[in-house]
Amino acid sequence: MDVVVQPGVNWVTLNKTMEDSGLFLPLDPSPTAMIGGMVSTNCSGTNAFRYGTMKDWVINLTVVLADGRVIKTRRRPRKNSAGYNLTSMFVGAEGTLGLVTEVTLKLAVVPQDTSVAVVSFPTIDEAAKAATKLIRSGIQLGALEFLDEVQMQVINRHGSEAVRRTAWDESPTLFLKFSGTTEAIKGDVSRVKDIVQPFKPRKIFFARNKQEEADLWAARKEALWTMTSIKPEGYSLWSTDVAVPISRLAEIITLSKEDSGKLGLFASVIGHVGDGNFHQAVMYDPKNEEQQASVAKCVHDMMSRALEMEGTVSGEHAIGIGKKDCLVEELGRDAIDFMKTLKQAVDPKWIMNPGKVFDLPTGSKAIAAS
Amino acid sequence: MDVVVQPGVNWVTLNKTMEDSGLFLPLDPSPTAMIGGMVSTNCSGTNAFRYGTMKDWVINLTVVLADGRVIKTRRRPRKNSAGYNLTSMFVGAEGTLGLVTEVTLKLAVVPQDTSVAVVSFPTIDEAAKAATKLIRSGIQLGALEFLDEVQMQVINRHGSEAVRRTAWDESPTLFLKFSGTTEAIKGDVSRVKDIVQPFKPRKIFFARNKQEEADLWAARKEALWTMTSIKPEGYSLWSTDVAVPISRLAEIITLSKEDSGKLGLFASVIGHVGDGNFHQAVMYDPKNEEQQASVAKCVHDMMSRALEMEGTVSGEHAIGIGKKDCLVEELGRDAIDFMKTLKQAVDPKWIMNPGKVFDLPTGSKAIAAS
Repeated sequence: MDVVVQPGVNWVTLNKTMEDSGLFLPLDPSPTAMIGGMVSTNCSGTNAFRYGTMKDWVINLTVVLADGRVIKTRRRPRKNSAGYNLTSMFVGAEGTLGLVTEVTLKLAVVPQDTSVAVVSFPTIDEAAKAATKLIRSGIQLGALEFLDEVQMQVINRHGSEAVRRTAWDESPTLFLKFSGTTEAIKGDVSRVKDIVQPFKPRKIFFARNKQEEADLWAARKEALWTMTSIKPEGYSLWSTDVAVPISRLAEIITLSKEDSGKLGLFASVIGHVGDGNFHQAVMYDPKNEEQQASVAKCVHDMMSRALEMEGTVSGEHAIGIGKKDCLVEELGRDAIDFMKTLKQAVDPKWIMNPGKVFDLPTGSKAIAAS
Repeated sequence: MDVVVQPGVNWVTLNKTMEDSGLFLPLDPSPTAMIGGMVSTNCSGTNAFRYGTMKDWVINLTVVLADGRVIKTRRRPRKNSAGYNLTSMFVGAEGTLGLVTEVTLKLAVVPQDTSVAVVSFPTIDEAAKAATKLIRSGIQLGALEFLDEVQMQVINRHGSEAVRRTAWDESPTLFLKFSGTTEAIKGDVSRVKDIVQPFKPRKIFFARNKQEEADLWAARKEALWTMTSIKPEGYSLWSTDVAVPISRLAEIITLSKEDSGKLGLFASVIGHVGDGNFHQAVMYDPKNEEQQASVAKCVHDMMSRALEMEGTVSGEHAIGIGKKDCLVEELGRDAIDFMKTLKQAVDPKWIMNPGKVFDLPTGSKAIAAS
């Protein structure tokens, strides 16, 4: 129930290769993602609500350190309390502490069955309240995703043929994935209608067969691509993510949408609502300086607001170059200094992925990666 | 769905206090354990198979560093990719990197229903094979535990009144906990009989009501206490844990039992079989030097064997003082040096829980904790 892979392996290819085993790596980031990047950003995606994030699926890492030594962070058991948890230290460190060359991954058992339901609501607030009720019901959801009315419009008009077979309601919508035994799913599906009822659902779709299941879920999977496909020539898409405590999610999404609306920007929201995590994708013309400033302000305000709500500036995309300043605001100077102390101790010349996560120390000779 | 607690809070008290919320902290270590110790050893217990270990339930930690500064490792969202994962670094560090003063814990939704089944087998090998088949079946088990024939004898003869209401089979036995919706459990229970059939089950008990469920599970919960209660005056119990890849579990348990048998020691085995993790509890007279040497050899051999099988010298008890040498054997000199580099950087005077996990550096003035 584990597999050893190199960082250049694509996770979709890996899961295809293992298909016959009945096992899979249950993360669900972009289909283009590779294991190395998934490790270094602590990625997740739609399945995180049930399966957690990348850190929960890495058993051990082989890492080349800055001084050339090679270590293996842990041995092969799924459970381990021996020494410092170096595995979780390198996962999400964005390559700044060492170079990952091999990864042992835990695998999950493919569920016997899955199904999908889609429910639209009059407002974001009602969708969020229904989501909370679903989470608290104890139903075994595989995923719980949110798309706003803008994203639903885009899907209706620009989705693939499979997606356009459904007449989507253009209002805030929850996408539910059920996963478990066939009997369990039957019971769960029948409870969902009752649970969402108090929140004035507008349209409810339950997949009646595997084709409908695939068609319904495709709308969620295609969401980002539909936005990309309608982008005018020369325009860019600024996609960013923040996370907040689940109880604050409706509020921050509503406020962020108001902000982008006021600035005259075309933006859609996709949320991993089960994790309190959401993305706003904003379209802009990079040649238009005023518009570019508007997007930057919009994203910055979203991060500040997340921080005000005890949130984080990144739920799953990590820090990179763009969010370095916000990281200090998020965790405070002492926590950042502590992180830098660790970095300095294991990479005194700052040669590992320099310039990511933190700025280089003043006077440092290392050259920032492009 | 989260709670802020201080390290001296007992987890049983915490769950009792929150009872009305429908939420709970799903770890299951000794009922005497407190949050601080649970964090510092990355504890787990019978529920780890479904819910993971302590590291999976800590959202953030407030930590006093060796230099007196106070940091908070993360903010409040359940999902977070902002900067180094300091939370997971302090969890399991046994207090050697800092002093944890406050903990934000993620909570789980109490399952709608639970149930219990107990199945005995002719041999450890058949029990282990049945366990693997159960794990791979996709049934949503809440726990999957193993007790050997010695432990079953002890339970039959010395268990509480509730436990002795069942006529236990004195052979290797699996304890299964089901948890989920009532419908889902009904389906799961009916599949278990078919799944274990090829492995020649001797006796199968399915709880028919809540009283039977409590009585059956009590046998597992009382296991360690029954061993303590039959210990002759002046005798000690050496309880240790190792973990191996699940496929090697039957082999290492069988060999470890042979070893203790050959040395004339009375020992029982309790296994968290779903995690490849097991405990051997060995009885001995600490005034009998020969016997004490035998126990030490027995435990040492078990650890060496776990390492030969790509295992770990501790699945859930951590390193402390007793397993420091084995840690080097497990991870190699370079990985340990890397850990020490981290330790040295954040606690240059080695004042935080000195002498645990690693020996103090030669010539160090710090005094080892008793």
